[in-house]
Amino acid sequence: MPSSPAAVETARPIAVVLLSGGLDSCVAAAIAAQEHALALLHVNYRQRTEARELQSFHAIADRLHAAHRLVVELPSVAEVGGSSLVEGGPAVPAASFAVGEVPSTYVPFRNGQLLAIAVGWAEVLAARAIFVGAVEQDSSGYPDCRRPFFDAFEQAADLGTRPETRLRVVTPLIDLGKPQIVQQGLALGAPLELTWSCYQDNELACGVCESCLLRLRGFVGAGVPDPIPYRRRG
Amino acid sequence: MPSSPAAVETARPIAVVLLSGGLDSCVAAAIAAQEHALALLHVNYRQRTEARELQSFHAIADRLHAAHRLVVELPSVAEVGGSSLVEGGPAVPAASFAVGEVPSTYVPFRNGQLLAIAVGWAEVLAARAIFVGAVEQDSSGYPDCRRPFFDAFEQAADLGTRPETRLRVVTPLIDLGKPQIVQQGLALGAPLELTWSCYQDNELACGVCESCLLRLRGFVGAGVPDPIPYRRRG
Repeated sequence: MPSSPAAVETARPIAVVLLSGGLDSCVAAAIAAQEHALALLHVNYRQRTEARELQSFHAIADRLHAAHRLVVELPSVAEVGGSSLVEGGPAVPAASFAVGEVPSTYVPFRNGQLLAIAVGWAEVLAARAIFVGAVEQDSSGYPDCRRPFFDAFEQAADLGTRPETRLRVVTPLIDLGKPQIVQQGLALGAPLELTWSCYQDNELACGVCESCLLRLRGFVGAGVPDPIPYRRRG
Repeated sequence: MPSSPAAVETARPIAVVLLSGGLDSCVAAAIAAQEHALALLHVNYRQRTEARELQSFHAIADRLHAAHRLVVELPSVAEVGGSSLVEGGPAVPAASFAVGEVPSTYVPFRNGQLLAIAVGWAEVLAARAIFVGAVEQDSSGYPDCRRPFFDAFEQAADLGTRPETRLRVVTPLIDLGKPQIVQQGLALGAPLELTWSCYQDNELACGVCESCLLRLRGFVGAGVPDPIPYRRRG
C-alpha cells in the first residue's frame, strides 16, 4: 500500500541537534526543524551555568516540539579540568578576544566529546544528520569550532559506525556573524527569549564575559533588543 | 643547567591508554609503557561486567606503575542503548562470528566516545599519544575497530585541539591475531593473569561469549594456558 501524503509528512528524517540552550544552538535547532524531526541533545559537563542552560534547553525543546530529547552527564570534563568554564576551574575572565590566543574558557576537545555522544545516539535513532551551532568567524577562537574539524569528525563518524549509518555533520552558522545569527533566528521564529549564553551567572546574565559580549554585539548589530535580562551591558 | 641523565629518564612523554581491563588493552598498555609514562583511562559505560573490569583496571595500573589513572562515567551509552553489552540491553548471545554482520554487542560509536574523552585528558596532560588496543583482523567486526577510523579520528583530534597539542592515535595490535597478541603480552611481561575479557559474567568467565572465544583461541594458538578461570571452555 503506498504511503499517504500524511504518512510521508510524518516520516521526516531525524536530526540530532547539540542544544546547550544558548543563542547559537537554538538557531541551529530552528534551522534543523525546517526539514527534520528533532532529537535534541544536552550534555551536562558541569559547566558553571548548567542549571540555567538546562532550563533553557527544556523550554526550547518544548517550543520546537522536539520528537526526542536526551540529557546526558559527562562529569569527566570537569574532572579532567583545563578550563575556566567548568566547576573547579579558574574564574571566568572578562572578555579579551586576544588575537590568536585560545581563551581559558576553551574546554579541551569539548565539541569532539559532544559530537561523539551525538553520533552514538544518532546511530540508534537512524538519524541522518547532526546539527551543531558552532561559529567560527565571530567567535572565541576555539579550535573545535572550525569547519575542517567538523569535516574530519564527519569522516571519522562515517568510518566508525555501521555501514548503513550515514550522518552529515551540519554547521549552518559556521561562517555567520552574530548579527546574522540573530537575524536568522528572528526570521525563523526561533525562541531567542528562552536562550541563555552567559558563562558566569545563572540569574542575570553578567554582561561582561566573552559570551555575553558576543551575544550583545549580535543584537546590536542586528538592530533589535536582546530579550533577556542583564546585570550590566558590556 | 643541563638535565642530568636521571632527569631525562623521568621526563618521558606521556601516553594516554584506553584500558578496559581486557587482554588487548593490557598488552597495548605494556607496549605504551616501553617509551611513555602511562596515563590509564577507564570508562564506565555500564557494561555488564564493569565491576570486574574495573578491578582488572586497577590491578593492571598498579602493576604497570601508572603515573596517572582516571576512571570516568559515561552513562549515556546505556541510556542511548542499541547494544547487548550494556545494562538494560538484550542478552549477550553466544559467539556466532557471522561474516559481514555487526554483532549485537557492538556499542554505537564506542571507540569514538572513548577516544574523545581521551583526547580531552591528553590535551590537559600535554600527552603525545593515545594508545588503543583495538584489533581489526581477529575480532568481532566492529566498525570502530578499523584503522581508517582511527586515522580519521586522529585527524579530527589534531584539528579540534590547541595548535600545540599533537596527538598520535596508536593502535599497536590492529593487524595482529589473538595468538600474536598473547605472545607479545608474554614477551613484554604484561600481567595477562590480571585481565578480564568476558562480556557476560563477573566471577568466572563464561567461556562461550564471542570475547571469551576469541581470547581462548588466542591462548590455544599461542600454545600457552589462559591463566584466568572459566566456567566452561568453548
